[in-house]
Amino acid sequence: MGAAHVFDEAIALAPHGEGLWQGRTSPAYANMIGPYGGITAAQVLNGVLQHPQLLGEPVALTVNFAAALADGTFIVRPRPARTNRSTQHWIVEVLQEDQVVITATVVTAARRATWGEHEATMPEVPSPAETPRTQRRGVEWLHRYDMRFLTGGIPREWNGQDVGESLSRLWVRDEPPRPLDFPALAALADVFFPRLWLRRAKLTPLGTVSMTVYFHAGGAQLQATGTGHLLLQARGQGFGGGYFDHAGQLWNEAGELLATTHQVVYYKE
Amino acid sequence: MGAAHVFDEAIALAPHGEGLWQGRTSPAYANMIGPYGGITAAQVLNGVLQHPQLLGEPVALTVNFAAALADGTFIVRPRPARTNRSTQHWIVEVLQEDQVVITATVVTAARRATWGEHEATMPEVPSPAETPRTQRRGVEWLHRYDMRFLTGGIPREWNGQDVGESLSRLWVRDEPPRPLDFPALAALADVFFPRLWLRRAKLTPLGTVSMTVYFHAGGAQLQATGTGHLLLQARGQGFGGGYFDHAGQLWNEAGELLATTHQVVYYKE
Repeated sequence: MGAAHVFDEAIALAPHGEGLWQGRTSPAYANMIGPYGGITAAQVLNGVLQHPQLLGEPVALTVNFAAALADGTFIVRPRPARTNRSTQHWIVEVLQEDQVVITATVVTAARRATWGEHEATMPEVPSPAETPRTQRRGVEWLHRYDMRFLTGGIPREWNGQDVGESLSRLWVRDEPPRPLDFPALAALADVFFPRLWLRRAKLTPLGTVSMTVYFHAGGAQLQATGTGHLLLQARGQGFGGGYFDHAGQLWNEAGELLATTHQVVYYKE
Repeated sequence: MGAAHVFDEAIALAPHGEGLWQGRTSPAYANMIGPYGGITAAQVLNGVLQHPQLLGEPVALTVNFAAALADGTFIVRPRPARTNRSTQHWIVEVLQEDQVVITATVVTAARRATWGEHEATMPEVPSPAETPRTQRRGVEWLHRYDMRFLTGGIPREWNGQDVGESLSRLWVRDEPPRPLDFPALAALADVFFPRLWLRRAKLTPLGTVSMTVYFHAGGAQLQATGTGHLLLQARGQGFGGGYFDHAGQLWNEAGELLATTHQVVYYKE
């Protein structure tokens, strides 16, 4: 048996008394201050997915970043607030030193076959094989992903010129490759570098405040996607009063919409 | 002093012991089963806004509809899970008969002036004065809004033909007119009739499961908007496995982006 994937090590949670789990920030997913937000979202979701009372698969995940996580251990407290016949509503808190650092809600459900269609269709782009890997330097978590930018990459020059648009498209997968599952998809939904940096070509201090992921794929579809690249797209919507938001989509190589995502980000100036 | 606006009556909450408030479903905002989801979102937000420990103004609101609200009273339990220097993170639960029917999170913040711009610009459309009011029949809450559809109105024929697109644009304001504030804006964000009905011209049974609103405007901007119409736009993204989502935007008549919104909706077939 080989060593565990670095992602699995990062999201691992150990029982810590009645209804509590203990996790630990992973140096492999370190960001500038504290961990990469996507790995925190995956840890929160994992707290629900490994809960003995879990019903179904994730449909919606909202993670609110209440404070910067300090390096070290944390406690995850997932609580099934309401369980219905085929849906379940979770409230999750993450604590450090008895203080709340994350609040989150998760909706899980037993999905069933219905009519379906994707209106947010994948744009026509070159395949991952035709797209060279983008070299990313800087914080540690960047090295945990194979990113291949098609448009809207990190500005080459931080010249402060408003380019009027903040659309990014890129192929991404875990590095090393790892079969896709719900925690990995949640983590991928935060891969976008801040739209404000792209829009203004300026490294303004900032941090994600709240992030939502809607899961359109079931577990079988994720399994079929395997270790392939996902096409990720995001665009900023409103910027002002210290906060901006973006809306994004994640497709697999077959063009299936696996998830949509939104987030609102604090910025300083 | 005149009578209170029906919206203010509907979202009113009375103290109900330590940290709890009591509200009541409003027949004026009745939907097919239980109340209009938008009025529930407004009640949840109101529970935070009138809390004595409130810091700042709403930035993000996520409301999860865990169960159908029964007509009658309910308890709102807002809890400031984390208070920082300029931001605050709330967990809110709504209970009926000691059972959770709503879970929600709210982020509030003291906003400050920064660079700003709206990338999600308002489409060019005729003004509200040039757009005839759309007659809506059916459930009671529809009569609480003046709606003027520009595109993507309720299908004239429920013929089950997939029209391939689910974009709606409409002017909306409270009826009778009422100066805009945060609870009213939250309620307006749910005005869109289900994208699935538009897309398929079919009255499939369904219900919103989770809804998020990002507030781009501060209180002063809402005040300046006053009783004017808002332009609302929404479009479905993914439909399948019993759930679909949409993404939407709300602008005032001056073309300012006041809020963006997303929701995921359960459907039966």
